[in-house]
Formats: sequence, structure tokens, C-alpha cells
Amino acid sequence: MSIIRLDLSECPYPPSPKVVKVISDSASTINRYPKMLGGLLPDALTAYTGKSKEQIVIGNGSDDLIELIIKIFTHPNEQILIPIPSFPGYWYAAKNLDKEVIFVNRDNEFGLDIDSILQKITSKVKVIFIANPNNPTANLIPCHILAKLIQQVNCLIVVDECYYEFSQETVADLIDMCPNLIILRSFSKGFGLAGLRLGYAITNAELASRLRNSTQLFGVNTLAQAAAITVLTDLEYYYAQIEQINKDRTNLRRGLEQLGFDVYPSATNFLFVGTEKLNLSSSYLEKSLQNQDIHVKNCGMLPGLDDFYFRTTVGNYKENHILLAKLAKMRVQ
Amino acid sequence: MSIIRLDLSECPYPPSPKVVKVISDSASTINRYPKMLGGLLPDALTAYTGKSKEQIVIGNGSDDLIELIIKIFTHPNEQILIPIPSFPGYWYAAKNLDKEVIFVNRDNEFGLDIDSILQKITSKVKVIFIANPNNPTANLIPCHILAKLIQQVNCLIVVDECYYEFSQETVADLIDMCPNLIILRSFSKGFGLAGLRLGYAITNAELASRLRNSTQLFGVNTLAQAAAITVLTDLEYYYAQIEQINKDRTNLRRGLEQLGFDVYPSATNFLFVGTEKLNLSSSYLEKSLQNQDIHVKNCGMLPGLDDFYFRTTVGNYKENHILLAKLAKMRVQ
Repeated sequence: MSIIRLDLSECPYPPSPKVVKVISDSASTINRYPKMLGGLLPDALTAYTGKSKEQIVIGNGSDDLIELIIKIFTHPNEQILIPIPSFPGYWYAAKNLDKEVIFVNRDNEFGLDIDSILQKITSKVKVIFIANPNNPTANLIPCHILAKLIQQVNCLIVVDECYYEFSQETVADLIDMCPNLIILRSFSKGFGLAGLRLGYAITNAELASRLRNSTQLFGVNTLAQAAAITVLTDLEYYYAQIEQINKDRTNLRRGLEQLGFDVYPSATNFLFVGTEKLNLSSSYLEKSLQNQDIHVKNCGMLPGLDDFYFRTTVGNYKENHILLAKLAKMRVQ
Repeated sequence: MSIIRLDLSECPYPPSPKVVKVISDSASTINRYPKMLGGLLPDALTAYTGKSKEQIVIGNGSDDLIELIIKIFTHPNEQILIPIPSFPGYWYAAKNLDKEVIFVNRDNEFGLDIDSILQKITSKVKVIFIANPNNPTANLIPCHILAKLIQQVNCLIVVDECYYEFSQETVADLIDMCPNLIILRSFSKGFGLAGLRLGYAITNAELASRLRNSTQLFGVNTLAQAAAITVLTDLEYYYAQIEQINKDRTNLRRGLEQLGFDVYPSATNFLFVGTEKLNLSSSYLEKSLQNQDIHVKNCGMLPGLDDFYFRTTVGNYKENHILLAKLAKMRVQ
């Protein structure tokens, strides 16, 4: 049996035939540098995002844009604020750029504790990163709550919507009203291009221009550009796939709940699962599954969590079935 | 006629059939994240570089590594030193990271003026970038001169050998003796993978580890990894191609000299050309060729040069022929 990877919230399906074809067709052109700044992709994204190409900035994955934002918008001794638990990529980037990070706990249901956040904001805090839906907790903060926060603070707020294709909720409508808002999106999740590295930012034209001025001109490879543009011409294929993943998520949730796990609401392609009721530590669970060639993500070591949480991607039918079967055996032991 | 691109020192030929095949074959796997830190590529590079995989760091193009080096090894108010004329990517990256740049002129033949460099070095200078062969001037500094400089200074020296496949000269032998040396290499030039973005650094294991600790885990895309590993199994194909380009460079040089241009010695896949003797400004020349769908690089605006220098890639036979024909006409006018 080959290894089942459910630890990186990847799409379990290969790209659409159209996307595979454009990659093959473009392979013979890679002796040439990529088109600068994502080439025609910002244009191609205007219909999908409802924003102008001047408001869109392409990156070598969202990770690239996270670092770019911190690099441009913070000076030495300034700080980043992150409601936790959340995606470690934010503080990894901050650490790499020598910036101090302030953590603020989310509430018991992993919602934002706006009062706590406001209390922690000083003039030194320059950027707040909010994953929405959140990773790894899978929950979605309603837009009106985010709007309230965005309008109450002066610092930049980055809303990371890399699971937008699953949640279908966005604060993009606020861009024109809120000069301090940057949205991040990704082609890695709903559109399954994780291996090619492609993320983008949506913001006002002024901030977008500052990002564009400091990003690498040739940072986004030719095949990622071609694949992403083709995805946007093949949305029906991808929407059907996303619907399938959402259905499979419901089934996987039921299976996990029947085994006695706590499964949290998810607006993503993964499930966040509590193991405490079963008295199973998530580090043990991760290791035990790994020994059986199934990888899930132990979240026990993340700031804001303890050793009773894991995250599993919604895999394909067979992968989900095997995961449930292995967990059923583990519970019995 | 389609546009002839001789402005980016690209390889004029598509990748080898083996490389095209591995890209097509890997296209269906890009729903998965790339292997971290370039995956198996550091292993694959050990034979080619003669260094251990612990001494190799993979980046999303050399541009990525240039920025990574500045990010890690300079603090606020510290400086970068660059002998000019040289590759603008160094000061572009420094500017993006808010670092001050000190330029030191090269000598009349674009060699290093070691005394001038030593005079400009203070405790604030943390990194020196030396392209070797140099871009855009195409000349090669002999290794023993670089060795002298490297051993005389305390700061880091980055020797950018992205044209190594053409020059076949390297300071890699000094890595084990000089704790302040980082070499950059690229798959964009001799190996023609510019569109996929792949550069690498060679240095001692300690510096390599620091670079690796601050780079993006998933920064190098899956298809770049697969293509580069395959290039290294197909070196005879590429060496034959490089030999062809070197021969074509000789012919292009002769043609340009016959037209009265000054052509500088080249250890690269491009030629650096002086236009002053013909009383032709390089900005005019660039524009005039561009109007005829041929792109060369005007170097007149680079610090350390004036409006009488351009750079042209050695294209394929037909491209070089057309370039010479157009230049012959321009000279007559």
C-alpha cells in the first residue's frame, strides 16, 4: 500500500485534463524566463475576484506573500499580531524577518476575541494575520465580525482566504472601504496546484503597487501561470470536484463522530478533530497512523492547543474509508 | 516574424526530450505540495558539484537566494558592497530589505579593483556580491584573484557563478578553506530552465544550515525539482548544446567586430558590446532593434556604464544572423 497523505490539506485529485495538457504543452518553453509579475494571471483573475488587475498581486505561493507583506510593512522593533491557534507560516515568516510576534488566544470555539485583540494592539503592532476559515481549526469567522475589527484598527489586517473555494465567504467587498485590508488566496487548495506554488493577494491599488514593487519580477514560474490561467477557464470542473470534497467531508465527519471523536465545524477541505473524550493523545494517534502509512497532522504542539487535537484532510473515498477503519481499530485497543 | 528575445541571456533551445517528458509525466502530481527544501535535488547535485548535500541549498531561482542571504546575514544599518557594473538584482534585493548599498568601480577592463574594495570595507559591510563571470560585462575574474580577496576580508563574499556551465571556472574548491564564501549557481542559463525558477547555493555546512532554516519549506516547485534532477542525468545533451552556443558566440563576435563594434571577452552565453566607436548610443540601438522585433539589453543606464553599451544573448543560428543583418543596416543609415 502506498502512503496516504492527509496531513497537508491537499486536494486528493490530479489537475483537470485541460490543466495537465497546458503544462505538457508549455514544457518546451521553459528555457524562457516567466512573464514578469505573474504575466496575464492578474487579468485572468479579474472576473473571478471581481477586482481590477491593479488590485491583484501574484506570489510564489501564499507563503511568499506572507513574507513580502511583513517585509514591506514592518520596520525593526515593530510587531505582528496573530490570534491563535492558527497557521504557523505567519510566525515562521516573522521569525525569518526578525519581527516580534504577539499571540492572542481565540475564544473557546476558536472565534475571534475582539476585545482581547484590541487590548493587545499598540502603535508597534503593524500587521494582524487572520486565517479565515482558520487553519487548523477549520471554522469561519462571519464577515461582519471581521469588518468590525478591520474598521476599528489602524494597522494592516491580512485575511488569509486560502480555503475560499470551500467556504465561499470573503471580505473582498470591504477592500474599497478599508485601506488597511489585504486578502490572501491560493491555488493550492480548491484548485489543487500546490506543487506549482501559486498564491495571490487582493487589496487596494496603492498597497498592491507597494507589494508589486518589492516582489521578485520572475518569482512565479511559467507553468504555474499557465496552469492557473487554465484553471480559471475550467471552473465547472473544479466546482464539481469541490462539491464532491464537501460531500465526502460530511461523510468523514459522521464516521469520526460515530467513533466518538469531537469534530469541529469545517468550512475547508479538512477536519479538525478533538481526541480528549477518547483519552487518546494526538501525538500518539499521529505516530500510530504513520506507522500504518497514513499521515495526519498532530496539532497538539501548536500554541493555543494541547495534545488532543489533530487535523485530517478530506481525502478521496478510499483514503477516508481506510482512515476510519484504522481509527476504529485504534479505539478498540 | 515572431519576436526575437536576446535581452535576458536565456538559452535559445527548448529543454531536452527527457526533461520535457518528466515535466509531462509529473503534471498529474501537482495537487501535492513539492518535496520540502528541493527534495532530492541536493543529493542529485553532489556528483555535479563535488560537495555534500549538507553544503547545498535550493532556491526559487538565484534571485530568491540573493534575497535570503541579505535577509539572514545583515541587520538594520548594515551594508552590502557591489563592484560595478554588475547585475542589478543585488541592489534590487538590498533595496527591498532596506539595506544600504556601496558601489565600487571595477577597473577599465571590468576586473576587480581589490585595493578600492578593501578601502571601502568597514565593519558595517556584511556581504559582497561578485558575479563571476560578470553580468553584463561577460568577463571572468581568475580564481586566484577572488581567493586573495576572500581571504583578506571578514565579511561574506557571494560569488555568483550562474554562468558556470559556460565559464567552467569555479571557486568551489575554496569552500572548505574559506568560512565566508557562498557560491550561487543557476539552472536558468546553461541548463535552460529559466521558466521553472531554480537556483542553488554552495557553501559550508554551517552557513547552508542557516540559509535552509530561513528559506521557504515549499518554495521550489515540483516540476522544477523533477526537471533539474533529470537535467543532471542528461548532461551529455546539455554539454553538446553549450558547446554549440560557445561556437555560435565566436561567430556572433566576429560578425559584430566586422561591423565595427567593440566586443568584450565573454565566458558566458551573451556578448557585451561597446557602441561608442560607431557613435551609436545604446539606448537608440535598443529602441531601433525593438521596433524591428529584436530585443537586446541596453546597459547604458547601469551604474558604472554610459550610453554606449549593450548586451545580447547568443541566440540560435537564425537569430544571430538576423541580429547582424539588422545591425549592418543600422550602421549604414
